[in-house]
Amino acid sequence: MTGYGIIDVAGSRLLPVTYGHVRTSSATGLPERLLKIHEAITSLLAEFRPDDVAVENIFYADNVKTAIVMGHARGAILVAAKTAGADVYEYSPREVKMSVVGNGAASKSQVKFMVARLLSIKETITPDDASDALAVALCRWHRQKLNLRG
Amino acid sequence: MTGYGIIDVAGSRLLPVTYGHVRTSSATGLPERLLKIHEAITSLLAEFRPDDVAVENIFYADNVKTAIVMGHARGAILVAAKTAGADVYEYSPREVKMSVVGNGAASKSQVKFMVARLLSIKETITPDDASDALAVALCRWHRQKLNLRG
Repeated sequence: MTGYGIIDVAGSRLLPVTYGHVRTSSATGLPERLLKIHEAITSLLAEFRPDDVAVENIFYADNVKTAIVMGHARGAILVAAKTAGADVYEYSPREVKMSVVGNGAASKSQVKFMVARLLSIKETITPDDASDALAVALCRWHRQKLNLRG
Repeated sequence: MTGYGIIDVAGSRLLPVTYGHVRTSSATGLPERLLKIHEAITSLLAEFRPDDVAVENIFYADNVKTAIVMGHARGAILVAAKTAGADVYEYSPREVKMSVVGNGAASKSQVKFMVARLLSIKETITPDDASDALAVALCRWHRQKLNLRG
């Protein structure tokens, strides 16, 4: 499952544009699932034309199998972003949590709480991947505001 | 480095069409490198329009970092193949070696020797990734001949 979140910055006001996730069936083959992720991200980029694209970095994983799966999905996403001509920024989970919660070791529920608060989202954000994606977008906004590259 | 190899089957005669590798600079960012791989594979598929595309499966890697990097590149390649509408087949390194050398634990040099022999390639095939890619193509041909799916 791949989460996405697009935010809009109007002055100091932050608003969610859209968020959700791309669901792929484990019954279909890996190439088909990657194509679906690639097409969904390509379609979001074409529709909303974000100025910047930010993705979570992965430098480690619980195990090699998870690392391979995450790597595949990220490959499909990064190709979609670069093909659309976007500048791509990568942030570690720690940087994202630090930006949004002020604590690099924040829990998922703390991240979700602050994401909803910063973006004035009243409803419960589901799934977690969508909340995480909005957090990455907020991290990008925060970094840009601080005029920090990378 | 990503190797590729395209073969042509005319009756019982096997011939190399093209082979080589996509070189990316470690000085450029990961998204740019993935885009380059994606574009190179897309361009090869458009030029040579292979009936089938086969890639080596990865289920394990020496470590998580290697797994992530390999996953990214495979993600970019699989998206290119599926976007081009190709049927994608995946074979494990063991299956490839078994098909080409008749020994699932064959060495790189044994694979290279048999690839050159089966495809009547007189020159030394470099780099190893190109020879490995031709071996995967030969594995696909072999499997198809045996009428085995997958």
